[in-house]
Parts: sequence; structure tokens; C-alpha cells
Amino acid sequence: MEYDTLINNGLLISMAQGLPVVEDGAVLIKDGVIKACGKANEFFGVNVKNRIHADRKIIMPGLINCHTHLPMSMFRGLADDLPLDVWLNDHIFPAEAKHVNPESVEKWSRHSCIEMLLSGTTTCCDGYFHEERVAKAVMESGIRAVTGQGVIDFPAPGVADPKENVREAIGFVKRFKDASPRLYPSIFCHSPYTCSKETLTAAKKAAVDLGVLFQIHVAETRNEINLVQGLGKLSVIKYLDSIGILDEKTLLVHSVWIDDADIAVIKKNRASVVHCPESNMKLASGIAPVPKLIEKGVPVGLGTDGCASNNDHDLFAEMDTAAKLHKVALLDPCVMDARTTLKMATIKGAKAIGLDHITGSIEKGKSADIVLVDMDKPHVTPMYDPFSTLVYSSKASDVSLVMVDGKVLVQEGKIL
Amino acid sequence: MEYDTLINNGLLISMAQGLPVVEDGAVLIKDGVIKACGKANEFFGVNVKNRIHADRKIIMPGLINCHTHLPMSMFRGLADDLPLDVWLNDHIFPAEAKHVNPESVEKWSRHSCIEMLLSGTTTCCDGYFHEERVAKAVMESGIRAVTGQGVIDFPAPGVADPKENVREAIGFVKRFKDASPRLYPSIFCHSPYTCSKETLTAAKKAAVDLGVLFQIHVAETRNEINLVQGLGKLSVIKYLDSIGILDEKTLLVHSVWIDDADIAVIKKNRASVVHCPESNMKLASGIAPVPKLIEKGVPVGLGTDGCASNNDHDLFAEMDTAAKLHKVALLDPCVMDARTTLKMATIKGAKAIGLDHITGSIEKGKSADIVLVDMDKPHVTPMYDPFSTLVYSSKASDVSLVMVDGKVLVQEGKIL
Ligand SMILES: [Zn+2]
Ligand SMILES: [Zn+2]
Repeated sequence: MEYDTLINNGLLISMAQGLPVVEDGAVLIKDGVIKACGKANEFFGVNVKNRIHADRKIIMPGLINCHTHLPMSMFRGLADDLPLDVWLNDHIFPAEAKHVNPESVEKWSRHSCIEMLLSGTTTCCDGYFHEERVAKAVMESGIRAVTGQGVIDFPAPGVADPKENVREAIGFVKRFKDASPRLYPSIFCHSPYTCSKETLTAAKKAAVDLGVLFQIHVAETRNEINLVQGLGKLSVIKYLDSIGILDEKTLLVHSVWIDDADIAVIKKNRASVVHCPESNMKLASGIAPVPKLIEKGVPVGLGTDGCASNNDHDLFAEMDTAAKLHKVALLDPCVMDARTTLKMATIKGAKAIGLDHITGSIEKGKSADIVLVDMDKPHVTPMYDPFSTLVYSSKASDVSLVMVDGKVLVQEGKIL
Repeated sequence: MEYDTLINNGLLISMAQGLPVVEDGAVLIKDGVIKACGKANEFFGVNVKNRIHADRKIIMPGLINCHTHLPMSMFRGLADDLPLDVWLNDHIFPAEAKHVNPESVEKWSRHSCIEMLLSGTTTCCDGYFHEERVAKAVMESGIRAVTGQGVIDFPAPGVADPKENVREAIGFVKRFKDASPRLYPSIFCHSPYTCSKETLTAAKKAAVDLGVLFQIHVAETRNEINLVQGLGKLSVIKYLDSIGILDEKTLLVHSVWIDDADIAVIKKNRASVVHCPESNMKLASGIAPVPKLIEKGVPVGLGTDGCASNNDHDLFAEMDTAAKLHKVALLDPCVMDARTTLKMATIKGAKAIGLDHITGSIEKGKSADIVLVDMDKPHVTPMYDPFSTLVYSSKASDVSLVMVDGKVLVQEGKIL
């Protein structure tokens, strides 16, 4: 049997159960799939077309960015340090009205895909409008992505009549369901305060019927509870539960202002959460109770959010910030340790978006979504613990090689 | 007149008063000093030995890291995610006892200098033991540094008898006072809970007599108030004031647990503060009231602290974190805007450590401590506002050229 690729002699951090660390590790790949991994000497003499030497490098699964708005890189740094309503109403919404069109969406989605690949991200979960153009950029770039067509009860780019919003999303999912093995269409309801109960239930029903992920921004700001219509005495999470939105294919983005009872509701329904610490910090939204969510067994992934509120797609920086933020918020240096944080950015993120059978760890049978990280730089020397190094010291710029589905997309830090 | 160097055609962010931005900017240098800066076309035909083209690059002053323990890079990632007392008593102190000696101090100080230069830092303010070896590494590396010999009332590396701690520090300052135009010796008292009143007053008197900066960790943890002997009803800051420690050559490191009255005392005495957000987050110390300190006119610089509690010397990441942390802590997205944050990492940092007449901005008569930052990368595109780009999007790895005193130390991202 001839294999395609052997990645050899690196420090293998597979993120498989038990978090084993294999020195002189190797990964064997054929047809885009991981066929075996282990000690390099187990693969001596194997028949392989292409050998990748990973000396002085960490071999790790590609990072999973569970919340993006890829086209919004066009607004990176457009308006910072402003109150949320001024930022949205006076800057982002007018800029979107003026500049968002199919061509710009495609152009800046491609730009974001390149930025993500260069920084070691192999999968993202996106939501925006003109999502067919996001999907096109994703397919061309080689990255893996969940792509959610936006649903909102206002005229939106490409959806002039809000009455058509769910129908448009259904059409998008149907058109792209079999477009690429790396593309997973989805429905993305903007939020409980911009989508009516009728819109939310229709969109969720469609997602269930089509078998796809349902994404929604929720409990992002303290004030959201005053913005949602028909909440009564319910919390936003309980409201969504009461109208049947929560199940294991529901991804709750942000979930900052939730309490213990909400966490129990999320857990009971087996829904997932995306944590976007840098966006929540920069927009002054608040600090999500992530250590508690994880403790209760809710799958929590990590996301950058759009570039207008971050201002980049760098998951290495996001990990570092996430690990530190919860320590200072809880005045407890033990929470969000390096292993927990790296899991959030890999296998738990894959679980949150429903792709843990495909990616998020280096294991036999999974797709070869693999990143090599350089250990031969001053800022990562010495290394006592590779998990600590990856979370607290490694930078996006240390990523030297990136492959998705076994195909090398970044080599020597350059996009191919 | 023949000049040494002209940096030409970059986007000049001088950090001079008023924060002007000069497109097609240029800086003219002779004998390590900035002779002029302005529009590139003003320098057409100037007689110069060496031209540096800065197209598609930002020209900015080198960053100022106001708090380091350079040798501690040897303990980068040694022990993370632990309670402070376990971290210090079971890991850091034993590791220091075992591994800190003149040779290791010099080796890892050199390592840290290289790491800092590569990431755009041209000046640091350090405190440790065997500081003569730190000074040696600093002088050899070409970086600018305040180097503080540590004073503590316990046996310390190189100072077996604590009774000799102040005398040792005085000897260090005298030996290195004229050793190099880039070196500024200093006295670094570890903290009010590890130095007695007698030690503090003797060390401060020595610093005053010698005319050097006095550094001290202060109000880092909530519990510190219970650790300081003889505090009575005073806060730690008021205690230091009561024994005559505070003046404009006193640098208060951390200052996390301080109140409005403490801030007034700091201001009245014209003392300075160093903010180390990532260290304070990772050790779960707390969040310093930095926006209030700045509002009251206290000079506040930015520091990484030692590598055991960060885990790197990356001021670009530190700026990003600082800007975001205070927004979420105060639930106000307007605080710590990009300009304020960049000032903290440059001119205000220089002021805090008493070197603003020499460095911290690109102005005629100051030393040529200059950094070029690449704007030609996906994660910094587009650029609407260079201050936003530098704080929220630029990475340490975007630093392409670094000079100190007019001498190029990093070129094309590589140390020379
Ligand atoms: Zn979002
Ligand atoms: Zn310190």
C-alpha cells in the first residue's frame, strides 16, 4: 500500500482522549484521511509519496474558529473604542449598507480564509449575508467551514424583503448541501431581538428538517433582556427553550449574560456555546461564565467573531486571552488551564459545531486537518510543557505548515 | 553635512504631542540621534550614507517595556495555572534556588533581550539579582535598559546575607553608572512585604543620593495588605508615602489594589505606575484602575513582567490585552482607546521610567530608537486608522526593522 504523506519526527499533540504527548511523533495520511499516528519509528520503511519533516515542530490538529463573519474583515478597525449603539448604528450598519455586495463578500471572505489558514485555523463556523459567496471563497481557499446564511427581520444584503429571510436560508442550504465535502451549510439567526418568535421557530424547523446547524447570537449584552419582545419573566435562554429552539444542533454564540438556571437549560437540551472573549472584551459586553459551562459539561468552542470587533482572526491570541481572562475575573489562577483552553480551540470546538467526527483531533479515521508550529524561536524557549507553550507563548506567526483534508495550504508560513 | 541614515517613505507615527500621522514620512539620523523628521519630500537630495525604505511600513518609536525580570525567561512555562503560593513556594522559589547563578542570569537575559528586540521593544526596565550580568547582556545586545539590582530581606542569589542587600545595590549602581549610554542602573526593592521599613527607607535614600530610579512591586494582590508589617490602618500606598518612599523617581509596579485616595497620594508625589495586565490576569491578581490613574495624570507605563507569569515579552499582545481588559472590566468600550494604549507603550512608558527626554517618541534631539512595522499582511488589511491597527491587529511578528541609538539590530525580522 502506498500512502500519500508522512509527517515525521515532530512533537505530536493529538488532542485525542487523555491528551497524550508523543515525542518523535508521526502521522500517516492517505486520501485526505489520517490512517495512523504514533511514534515515528513505527513508520520506518512505510511506502509514502511525500514526507514532511517536523523536527523542532509541534504537530497539532488545526484550530477551530467557532464564530466568524468572514466578510467583515472589510471593516477591520473601521470604528473602535465607541459605545455599542454608536458603533453599530453610526458606523457598521451604514458601512454594511454601502459596501456589502456579492463581490465584496467574496473578496473579503477569501481574504479572511487566507488570514485564518496562515494562523493555523483549518475550520471555521460562519454566519453572514450573501453567504453563497462566502461558501465560494471557502471552497476555493481549501479551508473547512460551516457557512450560515443570515436571517434577520430587517431588509438585509441580498434579502430585501424580510418575509423571504427563512426561505432564502433554506434555498442556500439546499444549494450547498452537497457542494463540497469541506462545506457544511447552516442557518444563522442573528439574535432573539432581531428575529421574531415566528422567524426563530420557522428557521429552527427548517434547520431541523434539513439536518443542519442552527446558529444564533444570544445573551451578548446585559441589555438584551430589554430588547427581546415577548420575553415575559423568562431569561433569553429560557425563552428560546420555551419556543423549541434548543437542541444538540443549536450553537449559542456569546452566552455572556446567563445564570446557573440557564446553564442547566442549555445542558439539558445538549446545546453548545461559542465563547468570543476578545470581542466581548472589546465591545465591553461582559465575561461569559465559561469555566462553569465547561464544568457542567456543555461543549464550548472558541471564536474570534467578526474583524470589526476583535480585530483579527488569530486563535492563538484568543486562547491566551481566554485562559487569562477567566483567571482574573474569578480571581482564581487555576481555572481555564492550558489543556482546557487548547481543547476549546480544537476538539471541543469541533464538537460544538457538530464536526468532531471529522476534525478537531489527530486520530485514525479523521480528516488530516493538521498544523505544524515552530518551537525554534526565542519566545517559545524553553519549553517545559507543550500545552503551556501553545496557549501562553506560541504566536500565529509560529505556524509553519497547514493542511486541510491532507492538502498542504500553507508552507514555511506562506500561503500556497 | 553628511547624515548617517534616512528612513524614508513610511507612515510616520511619531507619538509626539498631538499624535500627528505623516504619510510618506521620513526620519533623518546622525550619531544615533534624530536630527529631523517630517514629509519624505523635505529630505529630497539630503546627503546620507544609508537609506532605509519604509514603503508599506509604519515608522514608530520602539516600545518601552516598563517591567521585566529578564533572566526569568529560563522559567517560561515552568509552572502555570496554579495558586499563587503554590506557584511561588513550590515551583519558582525552588527553581530560582537551584538554577539562578551568574551564568544563567546572563544567558537568559541575553535570550530575553533578543526576544524583546525581535518584537519591537527598544527599552526595558528590569529588576532581578546578579543584575551586573543582566547589565552585561543588555550592553552586548544593543537594547536600552534600566537595570535594577534586587533588594529583599531574605538570602537571595548573589546576596547571601540580607544585611548587605542595600549595600550591594549601591555598589551595583556605582559600578554601572557610566558603563554605557544605554544603561541606567537602578534599585529594585522586591515589595513592602519582603522588605522592612528600614530596608525600604535605606534603599530609597540610596536611590535619591545616587539620582537613580527606585522600583518596587506594590499592591499586586488583594492579600498584600495582610502581609505588610507595621501597616496599622494605612493602605500600602499610604504606608510607603508615610515613610518617604514616593517621589517622581519611584516606579510603582502593578498597583492593582489601590483606591481613589491612593491614586491621589501617588499623583501628589508625582510617582509613576507600571501596568502588567497579562501577568495580573494569569496570576489572578486583579485589574488595576488604569483608566482612573491616567485620568488623574499619573504616568502609567506598560510591562510584561517576567516570563514565568505571562509567558512572553510581547508588548503588541500586551497592548491588545490592556485595551480590551479595561473595557470589559468597566463595561465601557470607550476606555483605553488605541491612542491611549499606544502612548502607554511608548512615550508614557518612557516618562514613567524617567527616560522621556531620550526615547519614547520620534522627535528631533531624541535617540533614534525606531521600529518599522509591516502593513503588507492579511491581518492588518485594510487599515482605516494606524493606531487601531497597531493596538488591535499588528503582531510582534510584523516588526521588520528595529534600531536603537541609530544602530540597526533587527532587519527583515531577523536579529543581526
Ligand atoms: Zn458575531
Ligand atoms: Zn515583577
